[in-house]
Amino acid sequence: MLQEFDLIERHFKPLCKDNPGMILGMGDDAALLNIPPNETLAISTDTLIAGTHFPFETSPEDIAYKALMVNASDLAAMGAAPRWFLLALTLPDSNPVWLNAFAKGLADALESVQAVLIGGDTTKGPLSITIQALGTLQGKALLRSGAKVGDLIFVTGKLGAAAFALTPEGKQNAAAQTALNRPQARWRQGKILQRFASSAIDVSDGLAQDLGHVLKASGVGAQIFLKDVPIAECLTNDICPDSLELALSGGDDYELLCTLSPENVESAKSAFLKENMALFQIGTIVEKQGLNFIKENGEHFLPDKLGYDHFRSDGK
Amino acid sequence: MLQEFDLIERHFKPLCKDNPGMILGMGDDAALLNIPPNETLAISTDTLIAGTHFPFETSPEDIAYKALMVNASDLAAMGAAPRWFLLALTLPDSNPVWLNAFAKGLADALESVQAVLIGGDTTKGPLSITIQALGTLQGKALLRSGAKVGDLIFVTGKLGAAAFALTPEGKQNAAAQTALNRPQARWRQGKILQRFASSAIDVSDGLAQDLGHVLKASGVGAQIFLKDVPIAECLTNDICPDSLELALSGGDDYELLCTLSPENVESAKSAFLKENMALFQIGTIVEKQGLNFIKENGEHFLPDKLGYDHFRSDGK
Repeated sequence: MLQEFDLIERHFKPLCKDNPGMILGMGDDAALLNIPPNETLAISTDTLIAGTHFPFETSPEDIAYKALMVNASDLAAMGAAPRWFLLALTLPDSNPVWLNAFAKGLADALESVQAVLIGGDTTKGPLSITIQALGTLQGKALLRSGAKVGDLIFVTGKLGAAAFALTPEGKQNAAAQTALNRPQARWRQGKILQRFASSAIDVSDGLAQDLGHVLKASGVGAQIFLKDVPIAECLTNDICPDSLELALSGGDDYELLCTLSPENVESAKSAFLKENMALFQIGTIVEKQGLNFIKENGEHFLPDKLGYDHFRSDGK
Repeated sequence: MLQEFDLIERHFKPLCKDNPGMILGMGDDAALLNIPPNETLAISTDTLIAGTHFPFETSPEDIAYKALMVNASDLAAMGAAPRWFLLALTLPDSNPVWLNAFAKGLADALESVQAVLIGGDTTKGPLSITIQALGTLQGKALLRSGAKVGDLIFVTGKLGAAAFALTPEGKQNAAAQTALNRPQARWRQGKILQRFASSAIDVSDGLAQDLGHVLKASGVGAQIFLKDVPIAECLTNDICPDSLELALSGGDDYELLCTLSPENVESAKSAFLKENMALFQIGTIVEKQGLNFIKENGEHFLPDKLGYDHFRSDGK
């Protein structure tokens, strides 16, 4: 069995590439960074637990990829570009085949977000992955608290596919499985939104719950028009009668949800169009607090489930 | 049962106090920091697992305290002052009494190192605590790789008490239990050493193993004089025949081990004396690679155990 230090050296050191700002990467007691004076540092951490955040049968490549992207997504939601990551990996044994595949998934995700691994820790125990993400931005960050009455609400992609992947039908659906296992942090979108949006969050716990955080932080309410909510193609009504529910309250989408003041809508739309990126208008910020989903006939609709909470007594 | 968001709000938000550099603390997708242009950022992460890094019966106060200090210690070893921490907490249920005690221990440790909690994540699963530590320093960091032939080797405190605490005799020893459960990150010492030392590391896996890292990184060897190795008072030969072994290869001491060039020794010693802090000279850096422990009669001594490795097949 590999010793801890060999293990880190062999699998993770190659992911620590030279990059601007990094004075020292792995191998000492801490990593060292120089943050340019005109840049703000954004930092976030998220843990993924086997059986809770991903099915036990998930491949090590996908586990690593997702763990990194989930954290990159938090930075994206602030308008920050991912730059550096730390990995705290707890695993039951040091299986070199598993580690090799895990490192491959991590490398793919790092390349996709143009970032590097600068440090970490490996411990023995039940499989769990905690990643710390550091990114930078210039100017004001995108907060949850900036939504204003009259702002329009947008989302950067179609919803529900990852939640569908966990249903019996979705287990056989390749597109749904890809959405679940290979989420994409929308950091390029976040960089554009940083210039135009009044607020943003990433959709990790489901549209309803995450929009709820924005509304609470901003002290406003919202109307969401159901006909405008973009539902993932793999989730048509034919195969999944719950598609709307999954799009509204399923988790793991990692699209950005944002609000734009009416005067910024055209600039944002054209910036997105230029980069060939999607931006769907789904509703409006209103004064009356609370979140209302509105059907085409004007009636209100209440989703059965309202997103993910690790400590809800029903296990949701 | 408390929901995740209430739980974070109630127990951890009070630990996020205003401080210089923090633009935004908890409550959004990421925390935001401003790092002054003349300061370097040091970042580290460490995981503590119940049953591996602390006995299952450890109190939640002590678990939190130690988890924070272990991470602060990594910063101290770089010569960085701890400033900000993130907590990724995985726990089997959200017991408010446990959480309250855990938050108390965290608050005590944060106060001791004069830092704040700026973010984190809570997840459900087997108890595990991952902390990310961020600190700053001005000038050059203390690296493992700077030891030079002729440098003298020092340690900032007496060793072996924490390892003794895990022995049958040590379980009844209050001083040993305090050493194990309430380690002190030597960040004040680290700040002094940053001005004078040529290399440093914190003693987490045992003197022999951690000094080994310095020697390997610096491409040098060392002679340690056994009579000079400071052994914790609670560990006299009367009650513990293994005291020397525990001081050399027991883990969890969290003292700083450093090397000083002969011309810096007096300045460092007087700076330590002025602050009423200990500094024990224990050996010399030599050209011949390898680590030699030397008895008073000049004979070499080889410790039975050479420190802690999570993935050694013997479970050590």
